[in-house]
Amino acid sequence: MRVYLDNNATTKLDPLVQAKMEPFLKEYYGNPNSLHSFGMEIRPHLNQAMGELYDSLNVPDADDILITGCATESNNTVLKGLFFKEILKNPEKNHIITTSVEHPAIHDTLLFLENYGVDVTYLPVNHDGVIEASQVKEAITDKTLLVSMMWANNETGMIFPVDEVSAICQEADVLFHSDAVQAIGKVPVDLTKTSLDYLTFSAHKFHGPKGVGGLYVKKGRQLPNLLHGGEQMGGKRAGTLNVSGIIGMGLAMRQAVSNIDVMNSYVRGLRDKLEDAIAKLPDMIIVGPRDQRTPNTILVSVRGIEGEAMIWDLNQAGIAASTGSACASEALEANPVMSAIGEDVELAHTAVRLSLSRFTTEEEVDYVIEKFTAAVHRLRNISSSYAYKPEKMRAN
Amino acid sequence: MRVYLDNNATTKLDPLVQAKMEPFLKEYYGNPNSLHSFGMEIRPHLNQAMGELYDSLNVPDADDILITGCATESNNTVLKGLFFKEILKNPEKNHIITTSVEHPAIHDTLLFLENYGVDVTYLPVNHDGVIEASQVKEAITDKTLLVSMMWANNETGMIFPVDEVSAICQEADVLFHSDAVQAIGKVPVDLTKTSLDYLTFSAHKFHGPKGVGGLYVKKGRQLPNLLHGGEQMGGKRAGTLNVSGIIGMGLAMRQAVSNIDVMNSYVRGLRDKLEDAIAKLPDMIIVGPRDQRTPNTILVSVRGIEGEAMIWDLNQAGIAASTGSACASEALEANPVMSAIGEDVELAHTAVRLSLSRFTTEEEVDYVIEKFTAAVHRLRNISSSYAYKPEKMRAN
Repeated sequence: MRVYLDNNATTKLDPLVQAKMEPFLKEYYGNPNSLHSFGMEIRPHLNQAMGELYDSLNVPDADDILITGCATESNNTVLKGLFFKEILKNPEKNHIITTSVEHPAIHDTLLFLENYGVDVTYLPVNHDGVIEASQVKEAITDKTLLVSMMWANNETGMIFPVDEVSAICQEADVLFHSDAVQAIGKVPVDLTKTSLDYLTFSAHKFHGPKGVGGLYVKKGRQLPNLLHGGEQMGGKRAGTLNVSGIIGMGLAMRQAVSNIDVMNSYVRGLRDKLEDAIAKLPDMIIVGPRDQRTPNTILVSVRGIEGEAMIWDLNQAGIAASTGSACASEALEANPVMSAIGEDVELAHTAVRLSLSRFTTEEEVDYVIEKFTAAVHRLRNISSSYAYKPEKMRAN
Repeated sequence: MRVYLDNNATTKLDPLVQAKMEPFLKEYYGNPNSLHSFGMEIRPHLNQAMGELYDSLNVPDADDILITGCATESNNTVLKGLFFKEILKNPEKNHIITTSVEHPAIHDTLLFLENYGVDVTYLPVNHDGVIEASQVKEAITDKTLLVSMMWANNETGMIFPVDEVSAICQEADVLFHSDAVQAIGKVPVDLTKTSLDYLTFSAHKFHGPKGVGGLYVKKGRQLPNLLHGGEQMGGKRAGTLNVSGIIGMGLAMRQAVSNIDVMNSYVRGLRDKLEDAIAKLPDMIIVGPRDQRTPNTILVSVRGIEGEAMIWDLNQAGIAASTGSACASEALEANPVMSAIGEDVELAHTAVRLSLSRFTTEEEVDYVIEKFTAAVHRLRNISSSYAYKPEKMRAN
């Protein structure tokens, strides 16, 4: 049996989305900016896909949704765009506030911009891995240009106080960006209810294709292009349109948003079943209250066992899990998000992330419970660092 | 009949490439940076695709080929990377030389950077639409950091003096970048024979998928990331890998390069047949000597007829042609490349571009000759600006 529980890293392409994309990889290959039929016949399909994105986020046409190559590009567009537009021109407004657990696409971009006069505050998270909105309020100064805070964390699934931070930013006249890559399709992201200036998303996190993402830009908040060039996207993001990718992302987002109840009942139920079974094993620390997490995510510290060892044992059984973001997996270093949670040094080395999707089945979850339990027992038996306590295990 | 002669804008996905990509849009959906089988099973396929790119350009492993979202991203990576790495830190080295007929991804990026202290020289082209290498030599000063010159022009197909400019740049210790989007698969691009520091390419210009491109970076010429974030591409271009796109681009480039003889015999033969037929019509001006052009391209000025009118007539007959780069088509302004060619104001309004591919057939070319001829006659008959000369037409 093969079970994919690494949906926070990337997801399976929804077969409906794959089918919808296919003609645009075959017979409909024109450039939609062309003046001939090969190009123009594509436009209604693109318009439909763009409409699905606007509808799913509940934003008006007056705002922009720019299609990018990935969420990383979207995040870089915001940070480097504001660098060019504001900071290079007015160093008095050079302060950006973020959190210590952002994705590298935010964190490493800010580290880079620090070399060019940007002043960054990285707000520390609590033991659940989130910040309090009050920390943002306290960090804002006259020089603050932007707050960039993720909607939900990729490692822990913890949901951040987006509404409160939005209100604080509006009050203080500070721009607000959220990397919502882990939120779309898991928690409601309705931009009539939450006011943001910029919002990042990525198709492959919600059963769309890899190689395409998006950036919402509120009306009046236009940024200089990260990609200058042709007139695509109203001149705001150049590059030949990735037709099949855009069409795939439109349907994938519609599917993700219209299945949010499935995520919050069916997937949440499976996640809770899996989490309950794991919590019953001895010496497990699960990060964050489950009702404050995205409904598909568990981050557990299996005390005494290296995260990689667990991943390898699970992988032998055909189960895909993660020690942390795939973006950092090759490095095999202690996970920086886990390190930022701080309180517990061991967490950074023993964390295992299990992330489900609406394609996960109960049979798969039962299989994972069996194999996860077996892996914990096997690895603790051979571990030199873990003091094996058979009574305690039996008690559970 | 439908005939696609707009292959300089974008190309049909090679069915072999489409077939090779398909499994990576279906069952192989893992993130290749993951530590589990769903991710790791993809790596050999990615490695093969990357190998195909290195082999096709004939570059050693010590150099980098970065996968980007499009050629526009590649071009922006070079220009903005050098801006951050060199120009922001040392304004004494702020001079960039380019041509007046670059793609907007170069031209508009440089216009943007001029606002931030970059000094740009746009070398004028001659009546064939190319520069002489000596113009580069004369333009180089102590402050020159980079020369960016396309390998071949998208509108005219004219091939630029890359080898001579390469030698001049090496002699002067100036960096050299070439946007080779229109060259790959049409003229030999062998980087053991031509020394460049940076080279841009795009999959969808050689029968690969849209939404993926590449940037060759010579060893020792590393640039700051345009996209900061995760550890993908050795930390040099972040963003979850577009697996199907990379795999498609690898095979597409191999196919393009291994079919270069087909391009230079079969396609050239069809192009010449079409061009000969067009040249026989009265009052046609074809830009550039054909042996100095990519073998698939014709840019013709149909005197007295607006380019859009020709495109529309051809489109009615099922034929896709272009008045210029699709990247600018929506604007419907006089084509800036045609304007740069300069000598002939009318050219900018009357140009029609026909660009073939190895999938073009002789039957299609015969059909285009018939319909092109008919369109010229029909439109000149109803044109108020064209003085119709029936004898002259009969004479041909």
